Amino acid sequence: MNIKPLPKSVVWQDDKLYLLDQTKLPHVEETFCCEQIESVHEAICALRVRGAPAIGIAAAYGLIVGLAENVALSALRERVDYLIGARPTAVNLAWAVERVYRCAVVLAETYDDEIPVGLLCDEAKRIHSEDAASCRNIGVHGLPLIKANSNWLTHCNAGALAVSELGTALAPFYTAAEAGFQFHVYVDETRPLLQGARLTSFELGRAGISNTLICDNAAAHVMSLGQVDGVLVGADRIAANGDVANKIGTLGLAILCKYYDIPFYVAAPTSTIDLETAEGKQILIEERGAQEVTQFGTAQVATLDTKVFNPAFDVTPSNLVKGIITEQGITTAPYEQSLAQLFAPNPTD
Amino acid sequence: MNIKPLPKSVVWQDDKLYLLDQTKLPHVEETFCCEQIESVHEAICALRVRGAPAIGIAAAYGLIVGLAENVALSALRERVDYLIGARPTAVNLAWAVERVYRCAVVLAETYDDEIPVGLLCDEAKRIHSEDAASCRNIGVHGLPLIKANSNWLTHCNAGALAVSELGTALAPFYTAAEAGFQFHVYVDETRPLLQGARLTSFELGRAGISNTLICDNAAAHVMSLGQVDGVLVGADRIAANGDVANKIGTLGLAILCKYYDIPFYVAAPTSTIDLETAEGKQILIEERGAQEVTQFGTAQVATLDTKVFNPAFDVTPSNLVKGIITEQGITTAPYEQSLAQLFAPNPTD
Repeated sequence: MNIKPLPKSVVWQDDKLYLLDQTKLPHVEETFCCEQIESVHEAICALRVRGAPAIGIAAAYGLIVGLAENVALSALRERVDYLIGARPTAVNLAWAVERVYRCAVVLAETYDDEIPVGLLCDEAKRIHSEDAASCRNIGVHGLPLIKANSNWLTHCNAGALAVSELGTALAPFYTAAEAGFQFHVYVDETRPLLQGARLTSFELGRAGISNTLICDNAAAHVMSLGQVDGVLVGADRIAANGDVANKIGTLGLAILCKYYDIPFYVAAPTSTIDLETAEGKQILIEERGAQEVTQFGTAQVATLDTKVFNPAFDVTPSNLVKGIITEQGITTAPYEQSLAQLFAPNPTD
Repeated sequence: MNIKPLPKSVVWQDDKLYLLDQTKLPHVEETFCCEQIESVHEAICALRVRGAPAIGIAAAYGLIVGLAENVALSALRERVDYLIGARPTAVNLAWAVERVYRCAVVLAETYDDEIPVGLLCDEAKRIHSEDAASCRNIGVHGLPLIKANSNWLTHCNAGALAVSELGTALAPFYTAAEAGFQFHVYVDETRPLLQGARLTSFELGRAGISNTLICDNAAAHVMSLGQVDGVLVGADRIAANGDVANKIGTLGLAILCKYYDIPFYVAAPTSTIDLETAEGKQILIEERGAQEVTQFGTAQVATLDTKVFNPAFDVTPSNLVKGIITEQGITTAPYEQSLAQLFAPNPTD
């Protein structure tokens, strides 16, 4: 069967960046247009665009949006640092803007301080199309895991809205649905920002995939009933040893999986793997504002003086991870070796 | 030090039942007055009064509120069944109304169909004052666990608002605070109904106890940082083998405690222990409406057609429970024996 068309999170058109404003979903599908780098920075901070790969793509375009025909390397460097500051944990953001910057460094040898912005834009477009291809390949490699009539659980949104096409954690589901398989997905609502309730449930439903929304608190209960055959989540950063930084709550799920002997998989493009970070405890965990917890929409839940700890991510140790699905295949422990191998030069080159 | 006065969840005055409407907290302290059994039933269903012991006390008064001077046993039986139907998982509700009913059965031998309501009211008052005493004793027995400068985590609200005085799970904290101990409590916000954010955080703050609100999803992360020395929760029903039915999310916490080798304690009055229920899997888990998950206050979070699974409770197997703190002391495994002993007739009697 063909699944219905998925929403597009990032579109580059007529030298402008259009983001599907994810803070408005699932009720309103509103496009947020960025004509200057400042709006891209704001959109990343405010989670209008979210999901590690989508942030990377948006930032790559954001680096050059609003520029005149040429740009100097020093000006571009300032823009790179400015955008990286918007979301320090998201390794794809840094990866994408640094990649465009490296392209600029090469071009500067020819063009000096007048690097053609069009050529940098081509690099951003390559990042974008490579990401789409990478999602399709994650889907293909993850497909064999989705047995007929199996029940899955996912956390946060690592779907079409988080990336450029099929998503990462959701790509195997879309690929399985396209192949006509029957299966079911439990969707963690994912407090505090409810990306599961607002986004994953929305995009799975739109694609016609059977899914049930649960509170994060219900995951252990659903597992205890024998209704979860596997958990599949995305990643914001993967350390060289396979430790996975992902949305807060992921660590708890991985521990529940260990207890119930349920396989816990992570799906992410290799751009999420950061070999410079030896292990998860080196990853800086972004803390976000108290109001994400004390407020809900316009409703005040807890009193204003409530002290809050609101970490955006947690780190799942690699020994809890059954496999990491990348565009190159499923990588398993020992991760120090298997992840390094993904970046090894092809011996036939 | 003396802690500041705690809010009162249930008050009986001038033949009327006054409930602190917990759906309005923490913003508005509004009293919900019940003059007829129907309002008590509605208040229990709508969680205006919540927490197993508080529901039991409210139901005991609810059984006789609005009655004339006398009542027939058959009429009372109908009222008992009607109230039990309001919240089938809450064993204290059934326990409390059946206790008043048993009192009526005895009185019927003397008064036939004209049982004096005043005498039944005395029984309800005894339930109320016994509960208050029971909370104080849970506090005393739990006190030695609260080491100086220790960090605790609690889930849902098993505090003053849930019962009649110090609460159950929160009683050791209040007792420790009264004794002048320094310690800190992480409060799980407790989706879907946010009893932690709305109630526990509110009442601990009012008592001047240092606390930090976290999303349920952050519990594993906080534990991984070594910031939790113990978890203390309440219970809605405890089976004869020590399995504990409590607010959804409790099971997950207990599994996290096992993984991190953190002691997991349950505090509950013996009225919560149901020796008729051999083990947890016999406990009927109440499922509540989808809108608790898809909506928040007046805000729609997920789309209206979202399929939701919303179990109100889960069951923690007794092997994950380090100890059950009752008004009689701390009970430990093997629970079949230790719990049965709590109900054994005193050998000196």
